[in-house]
Amino acid sequence: MQTPIPTAIESTAFDPTPQEFGVGARFTLSVMSDDYVQIILDALGQADPTGVDVTTGVVSTYVSGAEQDVLRYVSQVIAAAACTGAHVSAAVHLSRGCPGGVTCEIPDGGAALVSEVPTLEPAGVSCVADWALYPLADAGTARAGGDHMRDIYAAIDHARSTGVEVESDHYVTRLSGDLAQVLETIAAGWVLTGRTVQHVTTHATLSLNSPSAR
Amino acid sequence: MQTPIPTAIESTAFDPTPQEFGVGARFTLSVMSDDYVQIILDALGQADPTGVDVTTGVVSTYVSGAEQDVLRYVSQVIAAAACTGAHVSAAVHLSRGCPGGVTCEIPDGGAALVSEVPTLEPAGVSCVADWALYPLADAGTARAGGDHMRDIYAAIDHARSTGVEVESDHYVTRLSGDLAQVLETIAAGWVLTGRTVQHVTTHATLSLNSPSAR
Repeated sequence: MQTPIPTAIESTAFDPTPQEFGVGARFTLSVMSDDYVQIILDALGQADPTGVDVTTGVVSTYVSGAEQDVLRYVSQVIAAAACTGAHVSAAVHLSRGCPGGVTCEIPDGGAALVSEVPTLEPAGVSCVADWALYPLADAGTARAGGDHMRDIYAAIDHARSTGVEVESDHYVTRLSGDLAQVLETIAAGWVLTGRTVQHVTTHATLSLNSPSAR
Repeated sequence: MQTPIPTAIESTAFDPTPQEFGVGARFTLSVMSDDYVQIILDALGQADPTGVDVTTGVVSTYVSGAEQDVLRYVSQVIAAAACTGAHVSAAVHLSRGCPGGVTCEIPDGGAALVSEVPTLEPAGVSCVADWALYPLADAGTARAGGDHMRDIYAAIDHARSTGVEVESDHYVTRLSGDLAQVLETIAAGWVLTGRTVQHVTTHATLSLNSPSAR
């Protein structure tokens, strides 16, 4: 049975910017090569940073901005690293609804934020991703009940309609396809769930050019 | 204000094995070296697999078993790779309370599973980790209300007592210290929250021997 993902919610006076709503990503790019420093720096330098604020730390790079800009940036960085032919992995963590450190300044009661699903140009490199979606502040929303699995199943059903290969495994859903298509699918589950759930995060580990996948 | 983490719950007839309760990990080890295949195979070969079932896939390695055994295994694999001196990152995903693919066979109503907090020998290598904790099925538990942030704050408060360095950032808490101590701290938040919340996952990206950290 397919659970429909709502495509719109009631309009509301709550109208934050993406930054105020805490929309963004953290990602860690790993390159299995002695030249990893140069490959990572080149990849970061080649991506289009329009619309995003980027802060690179010791463990991960933090990218904040609207969903479309964040996903474009992350996809371009990973694609640029993979285009060297090196085996690359990326730990990608998307979040919305919980801005600023570990504190939430968003009103109680299930304030959600309707955004369009990001669309990306094909990356021309394929990837396999282990993906998990977490609807967190789901108790007080229009679709009340706090049933986080319902939203997860709906997102997986949606993934089956996007053209990527979808496989279930312990803790994760495995997605295979063009890097941009896989990231679009992950972002769609995140954004569509976020139309009724205030705080939604998603984690995916992506593998590109893996010798085990050949 | 510190929110106390409960140390015990009422005993119950629900007494699953760790496997039945879906206790385990997925982790992806990335080695920034041309020799990554050999380093990863050696690291997997050096770890003690007592008590765990290990399945290595294209993206990640799945480890199921009791919390103590799972954490020991993951810590030993990462430590062995880092001991080569190579820059290593690890995406670690721990889960409990949702066994078998994406389906839950655990009774409704907040069935939780009390486990001891894993304890590990010091690894002798330091790491920095970006850590996120997700209490998911928290609506129907003894501590009702579905307030996932309460459990997250309690886990962060606990982390401040373990001797690792703790820093707040967007979406994550950053932990620095000996690899084993950092993993112990992450596992403690996961296991202690899991004493009252059925489905709890946690994600951490660990960085070791990073040139940016020197």
